[in-house]
Amino acid sequence: MGKALSVQSARARGKFGAFPSSQAYIHTSRHQAAGVQENGKLNSFFALACDESNVVPDSIQEPYPSSPPFPESLSRFNYDAFYQNELDKKHEDKSYRYFNNINRLAHDFPRAHMATRDEKVAVWCSNDYLGMSRNPSVLKKMHETLDRYGVGAGGTRNISGHNQHAEGLEKTIARLHSKEAALVFSSCYVANDATLETLGSKFPDCVILSDANNHASMISGIRHSKARKIIFKHNDLADLEAKLASLPPGPKIIAFESVYSMSGSVAPIKEICDLAEKYGAITFLDEVHAVGMYGPRGAGIAEHLDFNAYSEANFTRGYPKGTVQDRVDIITGTLGKAFGCVGGYIAGSAKMVDTIRSLAPGFIFTTTLPPSVMAAAQAAIEYQISTQADRRMQQLNTRATKEALIAKGLPVIPNPSHIIPVLVGNAAMAKAASDLLLKDWNIYIQAINYPTVPVGEERLRITPTPGHVGKFRDHLVTALDSVWTQLGIKRTSDYWDGFLGVGKYHEPINKPLWTDAQLGLKGLAVDLKAGATPLNILENVAVDQHRVSVSA
Amino acid sequence: MGKALSVQSARARGKFGAFPSSQAYIHTSRHQAAGVQENGKLNSFFALACDESNVVPDSIQEPYPSSPPFPESLSRFNYDAFYQNELDKKHEDKSYRYFNNINRLAHDFPRAHMATRDEKVAVWCSNDYLGMSRNPSVLKKMHETLDRYGVGAGGTRNISGHNQHAEGLEKTIARLHSKEAALVFSSCYVANDATLETLGSKFPDCVILSDANNHASMISGIRHSKARKIIFKHNDLADLEAKLASLPPGPKIIAFESVYSMSGSVAPIKEICDLAEKYGAITFLDEVHAVGMYGPRGAGIAEHLDFNAYSEANFTRGYPKGTVQDRVDIITGTLGKAFGCVGGYIAGSAKMVDTIRSLAPGFIFTTTLPPSVMAAAQAAIEYQISTQADRRMQQLNTRATKEALIAKGLPVIPNPSHIIPVLVGNAAMAKAASDLLLKDWNIYIQAINYPTVPVGEERLRITPTPGHVGKFRDHLVTALDSVWTQLGIKRTSDYWDGFLGVGKYHEPINKPLWTDAQLGLKGLAVDLKAGATPLNILENVAVDQHRVSVSA
Repeated sequence: MGKALSVQSARARGKFGAFPSSQAYIHTSRHQAAGVQENGKLNSFFALACDESNVVPDSIQEPYPSSPPFPESLSRFNYDAFYQNELDKKHEDKSYRYFNNINRLAHDFPRAHMATRDEKVAVWCSNDYLGMSRNPSVLKKMHETLDRYGVGAGGTRNISGHNQHAEGLEKTIARLHSKEAALVFSSCYVANDATLETLGSKFPDCVILSDANNHASMISGIRHSKARKIIFKHNDLADLEAKLASLPPGPKIIAFESVYSMSGSVAPIKEICDLAEKYGAITFLDEVHAVGMYGPRGAGIAEHLDFNAYSEANFTRGYPKGTVQDRVDIITGTLGKAFGCVGGYIAGSAKMVDTIRSLAPGFIFTTTLPPSVMAAAQAAIEYQISTQADRRMQQLNTRATKEALIAKGLPVIPNPSHIIPVLVGNAAMAKAASDLLLKDWNIYIQAINYPTVPVGEERLRITPTPGHVGKFRDHLVTALDSVWTQLGIKRTSDYWDGFLGVGKYHEPINKPLWTDAQLGLKGLAVDLKAGATPLNILENVAVDQHRVSVSA
Repeated sequence: MGKALSVQSARARGKFGAFPSSQAYIHTSRHQAAGVQENGKLNSFFALACDESNVVPDSIQEPYPSSPPFPESLSRFNYDAFYQNELDKKHEDKSYRYFNNINRLAHDFPRAHMATRDEKVAVWCSNDYLGMSRNPSVLKKMHETLDRYGVGAGGTRNISGHNQHAEGLEKTIARLHSKEAALVFSSCYVANDATLETLGSKFPDCVILSDANNHASMISGIRHSKARKIIFKHNDLADLEAKLASLPPGPKIIAFESVYSMSGSVAPIKEICDLAEKYGAITFLDEVHAVGMYGPRGAGIAEHLDFNAYSEANFTRGYPKGTVQDRVDIITGTLGKAFGCVGGYIAGSAKMVDTIRSLAPGFIFTTTLPPSVMAAAQAAIEYQISTQADRRMQQLNTRATKEALIAKGLPVIPNPSHIIPVLVGNAAMAKAASDLLLKDWNIYIQAINYPTVPVGEERLRITPTPGHVGKFRDHLVTALDSVWTQLGIKRTSDYWDGFLGVGKYHEPINKPLWTDAQLGLKGLAVDLKAGATPLNILENVAVDQHRVSVSA
């Protein structure tokens, strides 16, 4: 008996219980005739996907065990075989994703437990870069708001889902970025997608210039807009200018990121603003991995480029003008990484924001984030505006981690940011390294494989936090060194060609964005002469008299 | 002096404070030459949008107060004027949205406060249909999870953002819908958009048949898929079949909703499943407004159609087969309406769900919902599986509200569901009615205008909850009656043509989905004879011995 028929027979026997209601139906399986295809348009994939076990020979199609309302269609597309084939392809090219069960512990940061509470691991790849998800002021605000206003917002922004928490959060975001207005979305994926789709489709004959390494959310928004899309080489000003210069007058959007998530590279924002002005374009800057992390007030890289101006500005008299951040037209960011919550946003001119508010379906027709989440996010931003302690400590831990890994000959991909990609260069090997770290070392670092990075550029992506103090770092370096040896993964010395910059650790482009002076490390050289190790000093650095919320 | 120049001069004087850093720039405003257009492609809108105050006459463009890095482009598109024009159009056609500041109170449900805590209003238009946002078991679970696991998930599902809460929630959703698997998204907007885009673009030569009244999220996903789209008349089986019959073999998706949000109409789900089987299509059913609200276990309309089968099934032996819900291929739902939280999902076969999990960028590249939100949503679903009390009480209050409004001659648009649209038929009038209700009666009902409903079909959309007991309903009916008189809005008797069904209250299609027997109202007729009013009885009905969590 064929597979499909045996399943059907089981149903006919009432295997899953009797259904006394006259409203209950026992139909024959729709799948019994699946696989017999008459569609002349079937592509080559489909022939592969056709699973013979799903094909019921004509001879046994009659009689039906029960009467179906209609004869089964012989031309039914084999949906199940399609799904199976898509999954098979993912398995074959090693891009099938296995999720790890990681339960990050608020009171044991940066540790998490796995499926059971006693399987603890150190998390080294979270985007909760500053541990704000467990910041006491954020948690307190969330608990209080939850008690008073409940869980869900109960509607879209237009229909009973607009409230003081949305208003307060949007004002705080606008203030963070020194912009007139801001708008909150379910996520920054949605913010990027909805905003680029709306502008790209509404501006007449719009052209969008997109960095080659842009995030999926921007790629999606641009594609959805159906605007003309021109990709420029990653962070390549000459290529961008050549492409801008070739375009006719009319609206143009330059869409790019400040910190690129998987490489940690940083865009030349000021120079891109210069080109935008020269060629009449507007700039759309995704600061998702930078908000909370850079700038004296945590607004991101654009703010960081005018560090002193923002440090010393009198905000009661207005926002600094003429700065890089001021020149960027649209900034997008997330509440889900350094701010430790969830949600995304855009910030810019009041008119631009009101236009997106009024036109973008992805904003209009969706339930507002919970009041408690918005209140928590507002508290997180306010906290990070008020102190540089967490992001400085994060930078110090990043420097220490990078230095220690590089000293061991581990192939760190250099960059000026807080992200530490370590090159593996093979999908199966990257997963094996990640699995070994978890199993033998209680360290969780997700392998980053295609399609998130190109084939051959597979890596482990390490993200230190303020909580990754000495003992965590020492353990990490020992573990990675061991795993690299055990699996025979290439080290820095094997990359004599400088692939992805490995080994080029002293090039100016990789100089940390946070300078020694900005980090308060001016006295470090003196201390070193007195015999302390750099790690000791980093651990004990008094970060400008600010609070440091580090568990260890 | 022109406006642009005066702004620029203010900047040059350092109005916003000095910038001692050499990294600070003082550029001339990009906007000074805006409005002078050389783009031959400018459309007619643009001429309208050109604001003379933005045009700086040639004679005063030189000298620049400070030296710009590049000469200003004369061909710069006037982005600001574009935004202004879009906003002007919204104001002109009365579709510009003014958000009301509504802070729904967990301990005073269904009331909210406005901007200040003493401005209290009764909320009559929330989609927190069952008040689950303030259900004690949901709040408790959320507080506990927050304490243990913090606010944000800290990553995408693939990179440190997968956890026991996501696993538990997805298992619970699959169990709710008696399906093999489920997948959680940021929202159901994203779930619909991402799933339809993925399937529509991946299935070879896919055709999507879409109900004319489908939600924006489905329209978006279909459009993004670039698949061939065929719209069938709302809930019209003959039209759907004619269109299915005209199509060649190959993959087809019928995309529709169970309860349509703005009219409360209900799809013929079983008959659409019949057509899907006959023509080899799969069904994509959005149960967003029905989950938690219908069915013995709260799974939605599809479950409700086999009420007895699901009431009596032994789930330890498997899920009921051959039922309408079983026959639907893909069910989508929200955690943000009757379940009182936020987020959306799909449920269906394990292979389908794994395929979307593996391919949909809108799922893959976004931060996971907070653990505490997912835990709260799971608790809300489990609660609603365990008791019918809230949804029965909601239905009783719906019946009582509809009956009382109809008795006053207010033009209720009839339907078999829990949504009570009251026809106004004019955008300005609908807003005026909403404003009056808020100002004079402390009742919040958002006006629903174009583009959410067609021009001429503007309405107030009323959504009772279990908490809208007698005193709230009496107040509502008095208020609406008064506002209708005050503004001279048409009543039922004015719709002699039965526009949108107004007045046709006894047609079979409008019979409530929840029958008297399902609501436990069998004794009602006897009680009425004894002299009680229907409202008294509804209030005192013992809902099948279940807990009833109603504040009033």
